Amino acid sequence: MCGKVVSIVMGSESDLAVMQAAADVLRDFDVGYEMRILSAHRVPDVVAKFASDAPSRGIKVVIAGAGWAAHLAGAIAAHATIPVIGVPIDSSPLNGWDALLSTVQMPPGVPVATVSVGKGGAKNAAYLAIEILALADDKLRERLQKFRQKMRESVLAGDSKIQRQFAGEV
Amino acid sequence: MCGKVVSIVMGSESDLAVMQAAADVLRDFDVGYEMRILSAHRVPDVVAKFASDAPSRGIKVVIAGAGWAAHLAGAIAAHATIPVIGVPIDSSPLNGWDALLSTVQMPPGVPVATVSVGKGGAKNAAYLAIEILALADDKLRERLQKFRQKMRESVLAGDSKIQRQFAGEV
Amino acid sequence: MCGKVVSIVMGSESDLAVMQAAADVLRDFDVGYEMRILSAHRVPDVVAKFASDAPSRGIKVVIAGAGWAAHLAGAIAAHATIPVIGVPIDSSPLNGWDALLSTVQMPPGVPVATVSVGKGGAKNAAYLAIEILALADDKLRERLQKFRQKMRESVLAGDSKIQRQFAGEV
Amino acid sequence: MCGKVVSIVMGSESDLAVMQAAADVLRDFDVGYEMRILSAHRVPDVVAKFASDAPSRGIKVVIAGAGWAAHLAGAIAAHATIPVIGVPIDSSPLNGWDALLSTVQMPPGVPVATVSVGKGGAKNAAYLAIEILALADDKLRERLQKFRQKMRESVLAGDSKIQRQFAGEV
Amino acid sequence: MCGKVVSIVMGSESDLAVMQAAADVLRDFDVGYEMRILSAHRVPDVVAKFASDAPSRGIKVVIAGAGWAAHLAGAIAAHATIPVIGVPIDSSPLNGWDALLSTVQMPPGVPVATVSVGKGGAKNAAYLAIEILALADDKLRERLQKFRQKMRESVLAGDSKIQRQFAGEV
Amino acid sequence: MCGKVVSIVMGSESDLAVMQAAADVLRDFDVGYEMRILSAHRVPDVVAKFASDAPSRGIKVVIAGAGWAAHLAGAIAAHATIPVIGVPIDSSPLNGWDALLSTVQMPPGVPVATVSVGKGGAKNAAYLAIEILALADDKLRERLQKFRQKMRESVLAGDSKIQRQFAGEV
Amino acid sequence: MCGKVVSIVMGSESDLAVMQAAADVLRDFDVGYEMRILSAHRVPDVVAKFASDAPSRGIKVVIAGAGWAAHLAGAIAAHATIPVIGVPIDSSPLNGWDALLSTVQMPPGVPVATVSVGKGGAKNAAYLAIEILALADDKLRERLQKFRQKMRESVLAGDSKIQRQFAGEV
Amino acid sequence: MCGKVVSIVMGSESDLAVMQAAADVLRDFDVGYEMRILSAHRVPDVVAKFASDAPSRGIKVVIAGAGWAAHLAGAIAAHATIPVIGVPIDSSPLNGWDALLSTVQMPPGVPVATVSVGKGGAKNAAYLAIEILALADDKLRERLQKFRQKMRESVLAGDSKIQRQFAGEV
Repeated sequence: MCGKVVSIVMGSESDLAVMQAAADVLRDFDVGYEMRILSAHRVPDVVAKFASDAPSRGIKVVIAGAGWAAHLAGAIAAHATIPVIGVPIDSSPLNGWDALLSTVQMPPGVPVATVSVGKGGAKNAAYLAIEILALADDKLRERLQKFRQKMRESVLAGDSKIQRQFAGEV
Repeated sequence: MCGKVVSIVMGSESDLAVMQAAADVLRDFDVGYEMRILSAHRVPDVVAKFASDAPSRGIKVVIAGAGWAAHLAGAIAAHATIPVIGVPIDSSPLNGWDALLSTVQMPPGVPVATVSVGKGGAKNAAYLAIEILALADDKLRERLQKFRQKMRESVLAGDSKIQRQFAGEV
Repeated sequence: MCGKVVSIVMGSESDLAVMQAAADVLRDFDVGYEMRILSAHRVPDVVAKFASDAPSRGIKVVIAGAGWAAHLAGAIAAHATIPVIGVPIDSSPLNGWDALLSTVQMPPGVPVATVSVGKGGAKNAAYLAIEILALADDKLRERLQKFRQKMRESVLAGDSKIQRQFAGEV
Repeated sequence: MCGKVVSIVMGSESDLAVMQAAADVLRDFDVGYEMRILSAHRVPDVVAKFASDAPSRGIKVVIAGAGWAAHLAGAIAAHATIPVIGVPIDSSPLNGWDALLSTVQMPPGVPVATVSVGKGGAKNAAYLAIEILALADDKLRERLQKFRQKMRESVLAGDSKIQRQFAGEV
Repeated sequence: MCGKVVSIVMGSESDLAVMQAAADVLRDFDVGYEMRILSAHRVPDVVAKFASDAPSRGIKVVIAGAGWAAHLAGAIAAHATIPVIGVPIDSSPLNGWDALLSTVQMPPGVPVATVSVGKGGAKNAAYLAIEILALADDKLRERLQKFRQKMRESVLAGDSKIQRQFAGEV
Repeated sequence: MCGKVVSIVMGSESDLAVMQAAADVLRDFDVGYEMRILSAHRVPDVVAKFASDAPSRGIKVVIAGAGWAAHLAGAIAAHATIPVIGVPIDSSPLNGWDALLSTVQMPPGVPVATVSVGKGGAKNAAYLAIEILALADDKLRERLQKFRQKMRESVLAGDSKIQRQFAGEV
Repeated sequence: MCGKVVSIVMGSESDLAVMQAAADVLRDFDVGYEMRILSAHRVPDVVAKFASDAPSRGIKVVIAGAGWAAHLAGAIAAHATIPVIGVPIDSSPLNGWDALLSTVQMPPGVPVATVSVGKGGAKNAAYLAIEILALADDKLRERLQKFRQKMRESVLAGDSKIQRQFAGEV
Repeated sequence: MCGKVVSIVMGSESDLAVMQAAADVLRDFDVGYEMRILSAHRVPDVVAKFASDAPSRGIKVVIAGAGWAAHLAGAIAAHATIPVIGVPIDSSPLNGWDALLSTVQMPPGVPVATVSVGKGGAKNAAYLAIEILALADDKLRERLQKFRQKMRESVLAGDSKIQRQFAGEV
């Protein structure tokens, strides 16, 4: 898929440690992406413009990661009708419960596709974006299936290894 | 205090049952207020304009009530430097935990003055607004002190009554 | 969009009261859908077959709603590489916390796009499905924009009404 | 703003690590403040006297930070009609949930303006105090707007930097 | 035990429905008690005076019930060195979690003996008060043992009944 | 399976409404059971004796249901080395969270097999007991497989019905 | 107070790091205490005997600390009519929520006086025990008042120090 | 008990640090076990086959440990009628709450015997498996009783030691 079709947005520079994981997955799948720092509370007008313009710039899916009262994904969703994926980040003392609820509990009409908390969620946001893009891109779907196959083989290899390791137990 | 100096904003018409309690308190104190329905997710640009214009219209404090992933207070705070008071409303299946965390856990630089969940919080939002306004309005402070006095007398009356009611015990 | 492109799946008949809301939204957008009752724990092989066959039957997005330890969306996601949207349903004594965490906290590699708890979430699942489908369907995107516009007008109408209603205040 | 107009109060010496952040913000804005250690449970009469006397000493806003069953902000609010801002501190094993609920869930009539948990909340308490003071101080409002502008520029700079950093990705 | 030795205090009249249960237990044990409505936030000075004077009036144990950010028990404990028992009341939308944490999580030096949430807790507060009083009152201890004996017999009777009821089961 | 091999124990008569569901399942499978009311806190010695004697009376599995600080299952497990299944009951204001944690979080060495909260859990306790008994009873395993088959058919029937009901949807 | 009148009991040796804090407080007040390791689940009969015999050995108050599904305090309370104070210990992955609920949510008739989670709670358990013992020991009450006085002075000293430290602020 | 009768399954290699504790207990009891890595989401068909085949391979009890949205135990239970024991692992930022609810809240008909979170739970899963196997194996029951006896003696030894250590306290 040519061009930048996914926009990875995060609320602050400190979220990069988590959101890098989404970028790594997209790169592995040769999906073009851009990386942005935008804050729903500090540059709301830029977020609004970003969200409104994104489709015309070729962006098809937005991945937004934020911690605390994580409004970023919702604020983007409010201005766009392309899918917005939210990654709750556990950066506050409340272990991510605040970010999870702020991201997932969107009111009817303006959905955010929420994935799991933290780095695992950032990866899944990328996989979800790829699943969405693959609806119109057979090559991408093939890659996705290969990835699943590899994931499968990795589990099976781990299974074989642990079986051998404990084979002597009776 | 003449003119409309407080703006009570809510995310949807169904929140009126809760937010009316804030209006009732302000009316009791003869504080001018307006009542608005604005949604951070459904009319984000109107929220932005509302928040930017509010000071020039004479609004000094905003009270914003919302349920679910309650971004309304935060979205207003992002566009204004007047105090924004957030009322978390328990309208989702999660009993208000989602609205509480989405309202209170604002990142540094853009505070929301959060009060308790539900109708009790709506009342307290109004009292907090009055406390803020009273900093520049001695009459309002006097009224506030009278209200506290009345609240005090009401507790004392209840105390006397219950003491009498149980006086016969042993 | 002709044919059934969305599959709404639920864990038990009692979930229909919630999931009907997703169907209603899709019907309003003339998006073809099917309605299924499948349980990850009671008919796991049927779920597996359903998930594997769905793409070849033309299904592009699956919406899966379940309560308790809600594994349905995850079980479908495990067998498919099309997007799976999870609706946590608050049918247990724990108010939906169990369904929310069981749905959203998927491990890396197998994402579920989770939306809010209960009926509001069911609606949002449908809107999210439409956003995904609209990436390849300009008419659908137009409808989506019209819907957003209508939602906007409805909020503005409510705002006008409440402003008038409280206009007399001080 | 001349004189000490904000009082930063904390429950114990160990809270200074958190509450210092509020002081730093106020100093940056040239807002005069005092720093106090007062405990609702260990010196309740001093708290009562402090709260009653504060207005006559020129204090306009109180910022109170406490952990555990954090009653400090509420105890001050009970004796004063100036705005009291509460900072829940995550110093107990329960990660700040206890302090958050003890601070925010005040009963009707005696509000506490609660901000986020921990150091981020301490900063926001100061910003909220400044927003309140700025209602009667145009210079302070200007500074606040400059601060917001700087915060905005800092986000935009971060955004530019990260965009460049990932510019090569396709 | 002659005279009023237990003081049952509650935060508002609406708490009587719960706290009556404590009174009923004390009456059954012929323990003299008084019933008070006192609010830590609405009449803090009266609470302070009440707590300071209680011992000289012959009060040996205080039972304090409150909901929301339940500071009542803690505020009394701050002014007295007699045992204070706290009953968290589930009167807010948060189901009593706020009252529980606000009551139990007292900082070192000022303990509150917290019992379970709601009416069951009110009963247990009375039983705990009786256990404390019985340390210096053998008759009261005998009654307590008789009560335990009766409680035991009631369980055994229930057990016999249910065994018979289901005796026919294979 | 002849004789009473399962003992269903509950903490109080009011738990029968929930625990009856376990009895109904066992009766459907012709598994002999007894029904007991025993309280870890009110008749601890009877619980101890019950647990110690159970195996010699032919009891092979104990199902224990309780609410609040639900110690019943754990207290039985402390005195017996036969499997003890715990059913957390949502009878307190905390919606069953207290019973769930009190039942499941047993320290190493004394396990309780915990099932879901409330009536659904009571049913599952019975199914789990049957799975355990079936390890030594092929007929019981056959019945279990038939039950699973029926459960499966019931889901499939529901699925067929709902598919037809919504067949007309484009 | 001569002899050992308080028994500090803990569920396992690893709890000593927390419960030592209770012992330290009692030693400071010259209150005789014993230290025991007893487990409700591992030596239930010893717990039962301990609880039954405690009064005849002169024990007037029991302090019981435990983590996980903390049944220890409740199990002792079930066998004794002297006051039992429970200290929830945060030793499981759930941060003490399990121990808190298992300790405090006792059913009617068998109260446990619960204090805060962890080391702070262990101290408070000792202070509560001293408050109870002081009801019949004027010297102990005097010491308690002196301790409160010292605690007060320590806060005031901290307050003076911090005021001076920040005196230079505008 | 000869042959491999228990299967310990975990969701990923990183869970071995926790699940090893289950293996250690089984080895101490000379109970034959196998060790497997299987993921409900990454190799669902292998899980299904594993669960269906387990009984014919002589497996009598399955122990399944997983973190996050822990579906593994439930997925195995869906395909088998032998007892499945679930160990929730605290590997996500949410401290194990997600794994606990995903494991324990199974819908009626497909139970999972859930034990405590983390390594303590892994041990208890093994003890529970042994309790189940001991129903048909008197030697195993004897060993279980000896283990309980040893556990008892270890607590008593700790108790003696701590009593001596603090014997001098008066």
